[in-house]
Amino acid sequence: MENFNFYSPTEFVFGKDRENECGKYVHKFGGTKVLLHYGSSSAKKSGLLDRVTQSLKKENIEFIELGGVQPNPHDSLVYKGIELCKKENIDFILAVGGGSVIDSAKAIAMGVPYEGDFWDFYSGKKPKEALSIGTVLTIAAAGSEGSGDSVITKEEGMLKRGASGDCIRPKFSILNPQLTCTLPAYQTACGATDIMAHIFERYFTNTQEVEVTDRLCEALLLTMIKETPRVIADPNNYAARANIMWAGMVAHNNIVGVGREQDWNSHGIEHELSALYDCAHGAGLAVIMPSWMEYVMHHDVMRFAQVATRVWGCQMNFSQPEETAKEGIKRFRQFLHSIGMPINFKELGAKESDIPQLVKTFGIGEGETGGFVHLKANDIANIYKIAVDASI
Amino acid sequence: MENFNFYSPTEFVFGKDRENECGKYVHKFGGTKVLLHYGSSSAKKSGLLDRVTQSLKKENIEFIELGGVQPNPHDSLVYKGIELCKKENIDFILAVGGGSVIDSAKAIAMGVPYEGDFWDFYSGKKPKEALSIGTVLTIAAAGSEGSGDSVITKEEGMLKRGASGDCIRPKFSILNPQLTCTLPAYQTACGATDIMAHIFERYFTNTQEVEVTDRLCEALLLTMIKETPRVIADPNNYAARANIMWAGMVAHNNIVGVGREQDWNSHGIEHELSALYDCAHGAGLAVIMPSWMEYVMHHDVMRFAQVATRVWGCQMNFSQPEETAKEGIKRFRQFLHSIGMPINFKELGAKESDIPQLVKTFGIGEGETGGFVHLKANDIANIYKIAVDASI
Repeated sequence: MENFNFYSPTEFVFGKDRENECGKYVHKFGGTKVLLHYGSSSAKKSGLLDRVTQSLKKENIEFIELGGVQPNPHDSLVYKGIELCKKENIDFILAVGGGSVIDSAKAIAMGVPYEGDFWDFYSGKKPKEALSIGTVLTIAAAGSEGSGDSVITKEEGMLKRGASGDCIRPKFSILNPQLTCTLPAYQTACGATDIMAHIFERYFTNTQEVEVTDRLCEALLLTMIKETPRVIADPNNYAARANIMWAGMVAHNNIVGVGREQDWNSHGIEHELSALYDCAHGAGLAVIMPSWMEYVMHHDVMRFAQVATRVWGCQMNFSQPEETAKEGIKRFRQFLHSIGMPINFKELGAKESDIPQLVKTFGIGEGETGGFVHLKANDIANIYKIAVDASI
Repeated sequence: MENFNFYSPTEFVFGKDRENECGKYVHKFGGTKVLLHYGSSSAKKSGLLDRVTQSLKKENIEFIELGGVQPNPHDSLVYKGIELCKKENIDFILAVGGGSVIDSAKAIAMGVPYEGDFWDFYSGKKPKEALSIGTVLTIAAAGSEGSGDSVITKEEGMLKRGASGDCIRPKFSILNPQLTCTLPAYQTACGATDIMAHIFERYFTNTQEVEVTDRLCEALLLTMIKETPRVIADPNNYAARANIMWAGMVAHNNIVGVGREQDWNSHGIEHELSALYDCAHGAGLAVIMPSWMEYVMHHDVMRFAQVATRVWGCQMNFSQPEETAKEGIKRFRQFLHSIGMPINFKELGAKESDIPQLVKTFGIGEGETGGFVHLKANDIANIYKIAVDASI
C-alpha cells in the first residue's frame, strides 16, 4: 500500500425528509448569506426548492437564487455565479441538485476568493481556499457530494476538465433517497453506471497487496449489481434507492481508493463524448468502460479474473484465466444493457467518423496518459474503435 | 435503512515514517501547547517518542509528558491528566499508543473544559466540547483513532464504561503500519479479534435491506481472515500490516455501520471479563463472541447463514440453513484458535464460579439490554456458561 492522506470532513445527513434541516446545517457551518444554486425547473416543480427555502427562512438565513445549471455544467454560468457572489457578499453556497449543480457550485466557490480566472484550477492549479458549500443531493451518481473534485466544460472549444482540492469538499451533504425516486429509469441507470465506473477506476491498479480496498470496491460493486435492477423495475423502492445512494458516496469520497494507483482514463475518454454530443456522462461510460477493459485486459489477466469471480460470479477457469477475465467483461456489458444503457456508438448517437476529433480534443498529442496501462493517442483511438461495434 | 448522520472529520495520515510529521499536523489543527500522552516504556525504548518529540520541537510546539497509561485505562490517571492540563494551559492532547492511550486522552480532553466530574460522560451524559486530540497509533485494534468513542475503567468497583461524542473524534490520526511490526503475536491477534468484533457488532442487525453496509462489513471480515494469519506467520509483513491497519479504522469510524441497528452486547459482556481479570479485550472477545453467536443464532438463522457462505466460504445447506449457520460460527472459533486466541474460560484464565459476579457487575439487574437480541441477566449468564467449555 502506498502512503496516503485521507480527509473527508463532510457531515452526511442521510434519510427521509432530511432536506427540511438544511437551514440548520447552513447555520451550523457558519453560513449567513447563501447562494442557492440549482439546475432545471424540476427542483421548483417538485416542491423541493420550496422546502429548502422554508428551512433557510426558518433560520433567518438570507439567500439569492441562481438556477439554470445544465448537465455537463458550463463555465459561463460559473462566471455569472462568481460575479453575483462578490456583488452580494455571499458566504455560503447551497447546491440543490446532482453532480452538475454541485460541480458548478464548487467552481464558483473557488472563484470568489481568487483574483485570477477560476479556469486556472481546471488547468492544473491547486486551490487554497473556497467559500463553504453544502449540498442537497437529488441524483445518486457523481459522488460530488462527498468528494473534493469538480468537472466543468469550457464553452470555447468544449473542453471538459477537472479540478481537485480539500477546500471544495462540502461542509455538509443531505442525502434523501426519496428525492431520487422520481428520476426516469434512464437517468437512474446513468447514475448507477457512473458509480460503478468510480469503483472500477480505483479497482484497476498496479499497486500490489491492497486486499482491503480491493474487497471494499467489490462490496460496492456487488451492491450496485443487486440494487440497480430493483430500482429500474420499481422506482419507488426506497431501500434499494438508499443502498445505491450511500454506495455512490462511499465509492467516490476515496475511502475505498486510498493507497493505490488509480486509473481515470475511461472517465477522460468518456468526457470527450459527453462534451461533443452532450450525452449523459453515465451513458458514455457504459460505452467506453467495457471497451477500455477489453483493450487493457492482457496487462493483468488475473486482476480481471479476480473481479469476474468475486463480483460477477464467474467460475474460475484455472487453465485459461483469460477466458474468465473476458467472461467478466461480457457480464458487465450485459448488465449495462439490461439496465437500459447504450453499449456502442450507434446506441449512444456517436459517430465513428468523429474519432479523430475525439482523440484530438483528448489532448495528449504525442504524449501519453498514465494509470493502470499508459495510453497514447493511437490507444485512445483503438478504444473508441472497439466501442463503435460493441455488442453483447 | 434508518436515517442517520455520519461525520468523520479526522485527517488520516497513513504510511511509512509518517509519525515524523506529527508536529506539522498539531500545528495545522491549532495546537500550541501539547500534553504528550503515552503508555508503557516501550514507546520510549523503541525510539518512537524521540521521533515524535523531535517533530514537535521542529514546529516550536511546547509539550509536557504524561505516560503510564495501562491497558483497560483507569480513571485515576485521567484525573491526573485533567489537573495537569488545567495547570499548564494545555490546548492539544497528542496520544501516542493504542486504544487505551487514545481513550484515556479522550477522557482527559472532555474533562478539561468541564466543571463537573468527567465520569458523568461515562454515565450517559453527552459531551459538548473537548480539547483537540491527535493520535500516533501503535496497535491496529480499537479503532479509537477514527471513532468518537472512549472506554475507561473506574477503579472503585472496577466499572468499565463507555462515552461517545463527535467532539472527541481526533483531529488527525497518524497510522504507520511499521509501528505495529514489533507487536508480539498474541497482541497482534488480540487486535485482529477486536477489529472483527467491531464488524460483527454492526453486522448482526434487525434492520432489513442494508445490502451496502452488509457487503462492506463482509469485505472487512474477508480482509482480516486473509491478512491476520500472514502477520502472525511473518510479523514484518508490511503489506498485510497495512491492510489490517486500514481495515481497523474503517471497521470502527462507522462508515460500515450507519443506518442500521447495531448490537454491542458481546463487547459489554466481555468488558466484565477484562475488568475482573485484566485480560486483553481482544482475548475476552474471542471467548465471548462465538458463544454469544451460538446463543442468539436462532433469532435470524439466514443472517448467520449469509455470513457463513459469503465470509467463511461455507456451502449453503438449502434444506437445513441452521447447519450452515452453525458451520460459520465453528469456522470463526477455529480461526480464532488458529491465530492463538483463547476460546474458553480456562484458556482465558476465567472461572465459572465468577459468573454470578460477572452478571452482577454487568449491571442490568431485572432489566434487559437491547440490540439484535434483547438479553436479560439469565441470558448473560447462559452466554458465559457456553464460553466456559467452548471447544473447536
